Amino acid sequence: MKIKFIIVLITSLFALTSVNQASCKIAKQGESHMSKTHNTQTTNLLDTYIQNSKSRYESMLAQFVNIPSVSMENTSTINTNDFSLAFLSGIEDIDENAKTLNPMLKMAKIASQALTNAGFKAKVYPTKLFPVVTGELIQDQSYPTVLIYNHLDVQPASASEWASEPFKMQIKDDKYLGRGTTDDKGPALAVLFAAKYVKEHKIPINIKVLWELEEEIGSPSFEAFLQENKANFKTDSIVVSDTIWVSRNSPAVAYGLRGLQGATIKLTTGVKDIHSGTTGGLARNPIGEICEVIFDCYEPKTGHVKIPHFYDDVKEPSETEIEHFVNSGFTIDGFKQANEVNSIRTNNTKEAVLRLWAKPTFEIHGIKGGYIGQGIKTIVPHSAEAKISMRLVPNQDPHKIFNDLKAFIHERCPNAIVESEGTLMPYLGDLNSPYMKAAASAIENTFKKEAVFTREGGSIGAAVSMNNILNAPIVFLGLSLPEHGYHAINENFDWQQASGGIKLFVNYFELLSADK
Amino acid sequence: MKIKFIIVLITSLFALTSVNQASCKIAKQGESHMSKTHNTQTTNLLDTYIQNSKSRYESMLAQFVNIPSVSMENTSTINTNDFSLAFLSGIEDIDENAKTLNPMLKMAKIASQALTNAGFKAKVYPTKLFPVVTGELIQDQSYPTVLIYNHLDVQPASASEWASEPFKMQIKDDKYLGRGTTDDKGPALAVLFAAKYVKEHKIPINIKVLWELEEEIGSPSFEAFLQENKANFKTDSIVVSDTIWVSRNSPAVAYGLRGLQGATIKLTTGVKDIHSGTTGGLARNPIGEICEVIFDCYEPKTGHVKIPHFYDDVKEPSETEIEHFVNSGFTIDGFKQANEVNSIRTNNTKEAVLRLWAKPTFEIHGIKGGYIGQGIKTIVPHSAEAKISMRLVPNQDPHKIFNDLKAFIHERCPNAIVESEGTLMPYLGDLNSPYMKAAASAIENTFKKEAVFTREGGSIGAAVSMNNILNAPIVFLGLSLPEHGYHAINENFDWQQASGGIKLFVNYFELLSADK
Repeated sequence: MKIKFIIVLITSLFALTSVNQASCKIAKQGESHMSKTHNTQTTNLLDTYIQNSKSRYESMLAQFVNIPSVSMENTSTINTNDFSLAFLSGIEDIDENAKTLNPMLKMAKIASQALTNAGFKAKVYPTKLFPVVTGELIQDQSYPTVLIYNHLDVQPASASEWASEPFKMQIKDDKYLGRGTTDDKGPALAVLFAAKYVKEHKIPINIKVLWELEEEIGSPSFEAFLQENKANFKTDSIVVSDTIWVSRNSPAVAYGLRGLQGATIKLTTGVKDIHSGTTGGLARNPIGEICEVIFDCYEPKTGHVKIPHFYDDVKEPSETEIEHFVNSGFTIDGFKQANEVNSIRTNNTKEAVLRLWAKPTFEIHGIKGGYIGQGIKTIVPHSAEAKISMRLVPNQDPHKIFNDLKAFIHERCPNAIVESEGTLMPYLGDLNSPYMKAAASAIENTFKKEAVFTREGGSIGAAVSMNNILNAPIVFLGLSLPEHGYHAINENFDWQQASGGIKLFVNYFELLSADK
Repeated sequence: MKIKFIIVLITSLFALTSVNQASCKIAKQGESHMSKTHNTQTTNLLDTYIQNSKSRYESMLAQFVNIPSVSMENTSTINTNDFSLAFLSGIEDIDENAKTLNPMLKMAKIASQALTNAGFKAKVYPTKLFPVVTGELIQDQSYPTVLIYNHLDVQPASASEWASEPFKMQIKDDKYLGRGTTDDKGPALAVLFAAKYVKEHKIPINIKVLWELEEEIGSPSFEAFLQENKANFKTDSIVVSDTIWVSRNSPAVAYGLRGLQGATIKLTTGVKDIHSGTTGGLARNPIGEICEVIFDCYEPKTGHVKIPHFYDDVKEPSETEIEHFVNSGFTIDGFKQANEVNSIRTNNTKEAVLRLWAKPTFEIHGIKGGYIGQGIKTIVPHSAEAKISMRLVPNQDPHKIFNDLKAFIHERCPNAIVESEGTLMPYLGDLNSPYMKAAASAIENTFKKEAVFTREGGSIGAAVSMNNILNAPIVFLGLSLPEHGYHAINENFDWQQASGGIKLFVNYFELLSADK
């Protein structure tokens, strides 16, 4: 079964057993005078480096964006033999201009080349589905090591709905338009340019890069890949850079992450659509029955979930957390503007941030059944399908939630087929960890704005896997803004966030380095 | 606004004021010995005629079926100027082989030629949308006149779902496969061949043919066309041949017809799909809200409509009617088999026939919203639309029903846009009229089976218009069987029904003729 869904965000769940010398220094330097002096010196060199990198950054981003590495659409097109052969003969032997080349493989090849060109030792790992591209910049085994995670697969994009061709990047006034510009190719390249600076200026830190190609389909191969190769990814700490700020003025460092349980609910009551005049009243209507099932599951107007025990394990946020949320810079108007919606379920800010960051959801992503052309066609449909997911919060268990959903639906509609479409664990980190503080310092040094502490509404399966397997603390340093349109039409990124991002990562690497 | 829907069936609502000499004779001859003798003589000649007509019938049916005269799909492609010019220069000047020719116009041209070839005086009337094709076979002004209605537009057909190309008729073992074979091109041609026999054998009756091209979209232009040209369609009685038997062994003559009120319910809550991680819980979900509205309107499992006053005006069938329904030959198993469904809302025969023929419905024909590809895509959709209709029974008023629906939905969901998608009146004729008896006699003479009396679940807008404007009694003589798949994939017809149909119509015309 193919699992297909979409994920975001950011937390810092720390395994503090491995906090090393570097992290101890970080904890102290946040307030030190020395760090400011150092930053000022670095800033001049770094600013020049960033300005000089602009055109190269843009051409690389265009090269990345122009590859339609849509994981969701390519799962059925891969030929395992092609991948195996490619890996047997070596990724460098692949002709990336071959028209028949799977875009996922092309993306891996181009990404690997980019890492090599930036001074990394690149490697592409095959998995059961799409490869993982990695890079190592080991300057000295004694230096602290940081591992940075991004993903290079993207959401689908329907060209007809976009203002410009989604897989042909456009540059307009320092704004980059195209699928994947902000999620997550633009941030990945900001990390790459920061790492290049690290190497050129011999900043005493080792950097490992891990670029996934399955993030948008829930990372089905990632955990097995990491488990098998964990020895190669030993690290002192981890950065995940696939996150969204509250607003351009409110750079966020998040410490929690919602999980996800996806599902499809299918009901088939016949083999073909039949005539509603000659059969209507007697024939079952699967769309109607699916609508009833959905309404049994939740109250659409409020979002309240009606499945028994759904909320039983929800860990309520503390007063301190709620205070952070409310003071995060989140505004109802900002949310509406960024997402282009006129009305939402509540206009109370506190209730709004709790709904986004600390409460679970039941969401219908799509529904299909019967005739969907213009006007009406008076048939009784023979099947219907709803695509749903539930975002889950600590300490909800997705497996238990799915079983409850399935049993609940079968009680009401025994013919319905309920299938799991991906499972991601929720995540809760330590709001007060030294890495969180270092991330906040780097943000403040770079953007001259106070970092805000939030949880995030999205899910990143790979983050949970890395935390579990590598046993290293994670910092979530994102560069995207709400108006960049994660997963939406006309996705974009901008040089302001890209250049700020390069500076942010250099700052953060310096704070982690052996120099500190 | 384009109205798009689908319709069937059959009734006989008589305006008995115009019952003429012919009909009086019919009433008597049903039981006369003379009619049997006459039928036996006719049968030999007629059987030979029918056998000799087979290959010509099949080639004409193929010619008709191979024109994709899908009214629903061509409303947006017509160029009014093309139509006007075509009619100014004359339909005979149209090149039916021109690749750019609108299929509706091509259908009109071919149909007009077929009528001319059969000895009719053909005429094509332009309307605001698609033309009406007519033919006159006036043998003597003193003879009784019968007007026969069929339609030559068809339902859409998606080739990928069919066993064979829907617009390339296949013949297999006397079975005709293709869109429109049974609904309603096959029956229309059976009438044509019967009329040709009438002319060749000088049976003293005048025949007028009226072929519509808008039946499948609710006949939006028909009433205005008929009102304007009613002088040309004066007739003693009307036959509508667009109906379905209960089964091959139960030829039906129906005397009632459900009406229809179609509607679309649209809800838009944003301008684009947004990320369910970053917005889920706070953003509204239009699919969920549409599901709630649908569940507010009716109980999908039982079909019971919950809109207040919906059932207020329903005229309950009499005990005699219910007896006819129950004895019509309808069986639960036959229904399931013909429609290829395993489970239905009731297994009680009486309840089943009442649901089909005498009770109103609420039906969802289609629903769309959000992501409908494989798996799930975790977005919050920005819009959703349900396509519904209500089949109505005497004495429900579609306009009142629509207003009630709209108000009911707006109370619950003020943002929803509720639009009417076509209105057809329900219909109730006189079960005991002489034309019903003549139709029953013709059926019994032809098929050696007892005719059964039913109402029908479908709707034919044109029938109501003809009854109102031409003030003549209507007889519904259909040839289709449930397994022919009205509006379904793999629609088909067969020579058994076609040849029987030619015979039936000749029989009926003889019963109406001045000879009787």
